[in-house]
Parts: sequence; structure tokens; C-alpha cells
Amino acid sequence: MATSKAEELAKKQREISVAEFFEKNRHLLGFDNKRKALLTTIKEAVDNSLDACEEADILPEIMVEVIDMKNDRFRIIVEDNGPGIVKKQIPNIFAKLLYGSKFHKLSQSRGQQGIGISASVLYAQLTTGKPARIISRISKNKPAHYYELYIDTKTNNPKIVKEEEVEFDKDHGTRIELDLEGSYVKGAQSIDEYLKETAIINPHATIIYTNPKAEQFIFARATDKLPKKPKSIKPHPHGIELGMLMKMIQNSYHKTIKAFLMNEFSRVGTNTANEILEKARILPNTKLNNITREEAERLMKAIKETKIQAPSTDAISPIGEELIIRGLKKEIRAEFYTAVSRPPSIYRGNPFVIEVGLAYGGEIPKDKSATILRFANRVPLLYQQGACAFTESIIKTNWKSYGLQQSNKSLPQGPIVILVHIASVWVPFTSEAKEAIAHYPEIIKEVKLALQEAGRQLGSYIRKKTRVRDELKKRSYIETYIPHISQSLIDLLELDESTKILLNEKLKKILEQKRGKVKEVGLKAEDIEEYDETLAKIGRGETVEETIEEDEI
Amino acid sequence: MATSKAEELAKKQREISVAEFFEKNRHLLGFDNKRKALLTTIKEAVDNSLDACEEADILPEIMVEVIDMKNDRFRIIVEDNGPGIVKKQIPNIFAKLLYGSKFHKLSQSRGQQGIGISASVLYAQLTTGKPARIISRISKNKPAHYYELYIDTKTNNPKIVKEEEVEFDKDHGTRIELDLEGSYVKGAQSIDEYLKETAIINPHATIIYTNPKAEQFIFARATDKLPKKPKSIKPHPHGIELGMLMKMIQNSYHKTIKAFLMNEFSRVGTNTANEILEKARILPNTKLNNITREEAERLMKAIKETKIQAPSTDAISPIGEELIIRGLKKEIRAEFYTAVSRPPSIYRGNPFVIEVGLAYGGEIPKDKSATILRFANRVPLLYQQGACAFTESIIKTNWKSYGLQQSNKSLPQGPIVILVHIASVWVPFTSEAKEAIAHYPEIIKEVKLALQEAGRQLGSYIRKKTRVRDELKKRSYIETYIPHISQSLIDLLELDESTKILLNEKLKKILEQKRGKVKEVGLKAEDIEEYDETLAKIGRGETVEETIEEDEI
Repeated sequence: MATSKAEELAKKQREISVAEFFEKNRHLLGFDNKRKALLTTIKEAVDNSLDACEEADILPEIMVEVIDMKNDRFRIIVEDNGPGIVKKQIPNIFAKLLYGSKFHKLSQSRGQQGIGISASVLYAQLTTGKPARIISRISKNKPAHYYELYIDTKTNNPKIVKEEEVEFDKDHGTRIELDLEGSYVKGAQSIDEYLKETAIINPHATIIYTNPKAEQFIFARATDKLPKKPKSIKPHPHGIELGMLMKMIQNSYHKTIKAFLMNEFSRVGTNTANEILEKARILPNTKLNNITREEAERLMKAIKETKIQAPSTDAISPIGEELIIRGLKKEIRAEFYTAVSRPPSIYRGNPFVIEVGLAYGGEIPKDKSATILRFANRVPLLYQQGACAFTESIIKTNWKSYGLQQSNKSLPQGPIVILVHIASVWVPFTSEAKEAIAHYPEIIKEVKLALQEAGRQLGSYIRKKTRVRDELKKRSYIETYIPHISQSLIDLLELDESTKILLNEKLKKILEQKRGKVKEVGLKAEDIEEYDETLAKIGRGETVEETIEEDEI
Repeated sequence: MATSKAEELAKKQREISVAEFFEKNRHLLGFDNKRKALLTTIKEAVDNSLDACEEADILPEIMVEVIDMKNDRFRIIVEDNGPGIVKKQIPNIFAKLLYGSKFHKLSQSRGQQGIGISASVLYAQLTTGKPARIISRISKNKPAHYYELYIDTKTNNPKIVKEEEVEFDKDHGTRIELDLEGSYVKGAQSIDEYLKETAIINPHATIIYTNPKAEQFIFARATDKLPKKPKSIKPHPHGIELGMLMKMIQNSYHKTIKAFLMNEFSRVGTNTANEILEKARILPNTKLNNITREEAERLMKAIKETKIQAPSTDAISPIGEELIIRGLKKEIRAEFYTAVSRPPSIYRGNPFVIEVGLAYGGEIPKDKSATILRFANRVPLLYQQGACAFTESIIKTNWKSYGLQQSNKSLPQGPIVILVHIASVWVPFTSEAKEAIAHYPEIIKEVKLALQEAGRQLGSYIRKKTRVRDELKKRSYIETYIPHISQSLIDLLELDESTKILLNEKLKKILEQKRGKVKEVGLKAEDIEEYDETLAKIGRGETVEETIEEDEI
């Protein structure tokens, strides 16, 4: 009986295609509701366009069009001026999940998994039964190719419905057209918002967007300078795992263990290699294919115990403090801005950089929780804020010491916008939909350090502002009484009424001297001048741009 | 230039193996930290054991052993008395991702994706470089087979290190042994907690657990009755998507569209099929392979507009109200319990049942947020509470009207435990780690309806309790004065001191009559008796078992 059961079960045991898997689990890819489906599709297409242009040193010009086809159906068209895709790769890139160029290299890009755009194609065919329509051209000497594609979910292979040469009004570039079920809503998690944030964080890109109401928005590029192009790097030894190390040893064509260490990792020169091998009690010229699991384990331990230069940032392209502040200013009318870009750190061998920006006061609502803007490799993250390691880091930071209100296990309260960006060769997302950052301790630690650094600057500003306000209050309070004191003096000393103006001025002078005393107690003269200026600006509704230096308390 | 770029890029474009993908994204599978890694591994192994036993009508007896190997390494052993696995399938089941028997059928099981246990094997080899060790035997007439297995991540295929016949002290069953990096912590999200909750919700299973401190816990089975065995069903037409319908039409061997509808779907008889086809303006004997995309679309619309019998629950095995209450009572010393099991509903063609249980008062802490217990197909969910659709449903329920405190966008406050269970042929999780339920509107709606039903019962109980308390307070208040009144009467009327006892009794009788009046105003006599009993029980610290009927207010 039991026998037949195991054999009966065996008949049903078979391989599951990754396309079938995601067809059933489309919510893993960001397609759990109609509204999100529209956004996810545009995000994947635009991310790919930006990546392709930057890889080919082309200033991106991206056209996005969303057409309302009624009955919850939309046509999405995204067209770029990128390098194009060679003919034979078009079906694989758009109609095969887990296919691409970015997965196997260690350098920063928006896409990384080879899933995104094919997932959109899968969702489109699932909801409207219509194939994806692609045009791509790689140069003006070559024709443009048109494809109509489905994904055969049983095998995860492209099914070509139509292929032909067509006219295309660009020398090079790619165009994708998809029909899918969706829902268009404006507001916080909308396409409009996503494209606006994308334009802010990618000032070198021009985006022309036509929304379903046929309104056109042109986000023109603000700079002709492409961001620093990230180079591909080798993994850093710190954070590598034993299984990964063993796999690298198996796959390497280097002969000796020393050559392996020096050539397959970044930041390992001859001295570092010798130090590691000595600690691991392995001879430098040991043949690589003689290395046992136990030796690999000793190697791991030795690597952990050896000081190795921090990873290079060649593979990473952070936004930079200046650009973060500029981006925030463009969008948010605050009175104080600051940004911090941390030195690179590593998780699981992958270098990453955390950057944060703060905007405070001004027109930001005072009685609400902080607004959080999250970015990963320059892509705005609009969903799953609660599940994100960034949010955890913000909640775990003590904002009270920087002058904000905060109740237990909550976001800080007050007029503040907090921007957090991770730039990495491999961003660990909590799902394939790439909506939130996974809770790796190394990442949480770096975000907290960045927030603390920015927070101290904010705290310093808030405390100074409070003191200036107190000082002003005191002054205005006394000033209110000056005319009355003058009048009383005139009455008491029987002075002429005409002396009143003189008296007022003299009393003000005494007040100035009093204020001088305040200076000696705690404030420096130049501080006070600076405050006057700051206050005047605040009074005029202008923004206060200086980053006020570390507080002297 | 651009040409060469597209061609250069093409060289790097290639397929990504699903094993490579998850090796890089191990956090997607529940392996983002050492503590969770231990739990996830045990969870996957135990889930498989329970599924296998139930599938073969065997009362599960599962042995779980966790051995501390020092330096953050643990050996995990899980052994069951299930049907075993046939020899040639052992490597695929344990060392190939996306392989299994549960994905392609529509019936409730704990595992569903064919990822879990191979993911644990992948994590073990990644962190300790050690292969998985498996023993499986399918009957006493056959030998037990031993395998040492790695996953070749480049190809997602099993790599067999060793295979041999071994002794095994069971007639049938499977044993897995894994060495991995982990961290053992007791408490809310621990293995101990997970196994305890598993035992509660699976009273037909015996679990023998030895923890890393060599303490042994035996969770003996509480019943010899296996849960109702879910049958495989066909998809329900409601909730089906166009792409799915087109795929089913392509793959079906039925000749006509009517035969297709009646045989490939559940709940479609000849009348329903005719009604759908009439609405879609398609002749019943139209050849299936002549159906166009446009006709499929009309079919979809017609299905949506046709009333079809609710899905059968044959494929689902809910826990049931009685067992939920029994489970809660076993664990939580409360004063009031209730449970609601909803009728089946559908999302995307998949039937599902929502069940909730509430425990209130007693020893549950009064001044904290509600404790939430989440289950999916009888598996406890311990992580990602914030990202779960259950949590969203609880927050969106108005608990104030049931007598609990609740601030905006928060869990209710008070001495309450809320249990939510989804039983479905396909549970939509937010990630492969199966930690939280995706936010499908149909699921959120059902949870809210179940909570409201249970909440009304709770509210009724809380209100009655308040009234009883008020009544008692009044009585005890008056009773306090009875001796004084007696004394005064004795003094005033110059009665004998010996009449005091008589007077006290008479006054008490008057009070009883007074209490009788209260009855007439709002409370029935039998209510009051019931309250007396209830109050006495509360006084003795006993649990109050009756579900008090709907409030009469």
C-alpha cells in the first residue's frame, strides 16, 4: 500500500517552469492589483531604457505613452534612443524569464534579474491575451526589426507570432507596446509620481510622458553630463560565503591558490594573498584543484581575520550629496537641507553605498509623520514601505535627540522629508517586484550611521533656530514696552513730549547692549548676524541654504 | 559605434539558472539571517513530512533534532514515517529548485512551489559547503536509499556525491540531515514556538523535538483522526483570466467548446455551459481549435455575467470552528473564545476559506496591542506580520464597535488574541519564503467579514460583562450599607439587638426584589443566572466556555 503511494506520488513529481511559477505567483512580480500593474510595467520598461542608454554612453530620451482603451485596459508604449537589441536576442530579452546581461556581472544597474520586462509581457498576455509588440534597431545601416511575442509558459521560451522588417524613425533604439489590464489613478503611487521622481534622480534624462488623459509632460534634461559609468568588478573577499568560494575554486582556470586569490577577487595583492594563505596554513603554490572543503573552510576563516582594503567604488555610481540636495530643493519647499553620502561598505561580498538626504521645515506639513523617499540604484521605490529595511533603520534611529518628536517604534513626527538611496552592484530586494530592501544587518547599520550624521546637522539647526526664536521673542517683548517706558519717564521726570523719539532710541540702545550680554553668555557676534539673516530669509519665505556647522554645545 | 555596443551587449545576454538566481537572492527564500535560516529549514522539512503522511493516509510521527556544532553551525535532522520517495526522484526532490508534485494540482497542501526543501539544501551548501544527506524507503520489501547531494547552481540540477543502500529502522519514511549556519534563539519567532504552534494546529501529528540544548519535547497527538483529505479539483470559472483561458483552450483534448467548459472547469453543467455560450454568442458545438482570441474574450465576459454555483470545498480542508477554539484554549488562558469559519470564496479561480478565532480577557495582557496568530494551510506564519494581508484586514476592521480600543491605522488594543487562517488550493504569498499573504482584495474582504462576525460575538460578551459588573457593583455597594441600616432601624425603633440578623436578611430580600426590577428593565432571569455562573467562574479564574448569543440591544 505504502509502496504504491510513493510510486503514485512519483508520477506527479515533475519540473515546474519558471514562467508557470510566476504566472501563478504574479503578485511576486508586482502584479497583485490593476493599479500597480500599470506602474510596474512602465517602471521595468523605463529602467531598461535608462540602463541601455547609459551603458552605450547615450543621453537618454525616453517617450512614455499610456492610452486608455476603456474597460480597465491600457496600451503602454515606451520608446528609447538606446543602442537597440540585436535581432536574434529580441525574443529572449522580452519573452523569456531569467534572461539578460546584468545578472552575471558585478556593476550597478537598475535591472539586475532578467525578469522585469518579460514579467510585464507575461502579465499582458495573461490579462488581455495580446502579444508584446517590439521594434528595435541597432544602427542606421541596419533595418529595424518588428516582433510580436508571447511567452510559452510551459517551457519559458519565446513564441514568435510575427517577425518582419519595418520603418523606424530613429537610427537606433527600442520600442515596446503592451496591452494590459490596469487602472490609472493619480497620487502618491502613480505613474505620474514615479516618472517625476525618476526625472529628479536622473537629471541627464529627457522623459516625454503622455498620460491616459492625453496630457503631455516633458521632463527635460537638466545636465548633458552622463553619470559616472560603473565598471564591472570582482567580488570583495569579505562577506564571501563558503559555498560561493568553493564554487569559484571549481570554476576558476587559475592554477594555484595564490593566483586564484589575486585574480578572482578585488583588493587582493600579493601581500594580502600571502597573509591569508599563511593564516590558513596553505602553501601559495598549492594546485587549485587539490583544495579540499576543509582547506576552503580555513581559507574563509583566514580571509575574515585579514584586514583587506575597502571595496572600490568603481562599480558603484552614487548620486552624491550635492545632487541629492539639488533634487530635494527642486521638489520640496523646505528651509533646511542636508545630505550625507557614506563611504562604501560590503554585504555578502557586494559593495554598496548608502546616501541620505533630509529636508526640514518650510512648507512641509508640521503635524504628520515624516515623508520617506526611497531609491535603489536611482530607481524610486513606491510600494512596501513597511517591509523595507530603510524604514526599519529610520524607526530605529533616535530622532528625539535631533529635535523631532517620535513615539516608540514609529517614524519621527514633524515637518521632515527623509530620502534614502542605496547604490550597489546587487541590491537585495524583498521580492522580485523590487519594491523594498531586504533586512541585511550591514545595510541597516549603514543607513542608521548616515541618518545619524545627517540628523546631527538637523539637530544643530533646530536648536539654533529655537534659540534665535527665543532671542527674538525676548527682544520683541521688551521692545513692546519701550514706548510705554518712555511715556512713563516723560510723565515722571516731566520731560517734553518731543524727547520721546530720543528716549525710544536710547532705550533701544540699552536693549542692544543687553543683547550684547547674551552674546557673551552663549552666542557669538557672527552667529547673531547669521541668525538675523536666516530669520529675515525665513520671514521672506526663502530657503536657508547653508549647512550650519556642528553645534557648539 | 552604437552597432558594436548592441553586439557587445548581446555577448553578455544569456540565460540565468533559477538556482543561481536564488543563490544570489537567498533572502527571498527566508534566508536573510542566521536565526531565520534555522527556522525556515525546519519549517520546509516538517511541512513536507506532514504533507507526505497525509497524502498517504499515515498518522504523522516526526522527529526533529537540532544539534549545536559550535561557531554558528547547526546540524538539522528531520525524520518522518511518510510514504518515502522512489529512488530515482530523491535527487530531484531535494536538489533541484522548482520540482515537485504539488504545483500542478489544485488541492490544499502546505508545500506548493517545489522550492522549499531544495532552498534549504542550497543554503546549507552555501554556508558550510556540506552536501545534504538523505535516506528514504518506500516499503519493508525494498531497501532504504542513502544519498549525498549538492545542487549544481549553474544548471539547477542535482549533483550526486554518494549513493548507496543502507539500514533504516522504519518500514517507510524519509530522513534529511543538513549542516548549516544558523543561530538558535528562544522566543516569539523560534523553532520551539513554531513546532508548538504546528502541534496545536495539527492535533493528529506526533512531533518529537530535541533542541540544541539537548532538551526533548514530545508533542503527542491528541486525535487519531486524520484531517479530511482534500481532493484535487478543476478551476472555478469565476476569477479565471483571459490568458489562462486561452492556454487551457490550446491544451485541452476536448473537441467542442461546450465539452471543454463542462470538463475543464468545476461547477459547469450543461445548463451553465449553454447559458455562457449563448451570452458569448458562440455555438456549443464550435470546434475548440477554431476559437479565436476575440471569442475567448466574449467567453470571459459571459462567464463573469453568469451565476455559477460557489466552488466546492472538496479541495480544501479548513480547521473548523471547534478545533480553532480547542487550539486557542490549549494555549491561551482567556475568559472568552469564539471562532468563525467562512463559506468558501474565490480569487483568480482558486477557492479559499478564511477562518478566524478570538480569545479575550483572562491572562492576556490588558495594555498591549492585540497578539496575532497567522496560519496558511495549517502552517504558522511567524515573520513579516506587517506585510501581511491579514494584518491589513485586522487594522481596517473597526474594533471600537466591539468594545476594544483602537487608534487610527493600528491594531486594536486590549487583552485579545486574533487567529486568522487561510485554507486554499493556492495560497498567494508575498515571497517564496511564504511568510505573509499577498494583498488580493478578495482575501482582505473575506478576512474582514470573518473578523466582523467574530467581533460582534466578542462585543456582545464585553457589553454583557460590563453590565454584569455594573450590577454587581451596585449590589455590593448597597449590601455594604445593610448592616448600618439594620443598626439604625434598631436604634430608631428601639428593637432588640437580636433582630439584627433577621433585619439584615429582610433587607437583602428587598435588595433581591430591587434586582428583580433591574431584570424587568433590561435583563432576563436566565441571563442573570448565567451571569452569576459566569462571574463565579471568572472569580475562580476558570474559563468561560459558552459563546454568548447575539446581543439583544
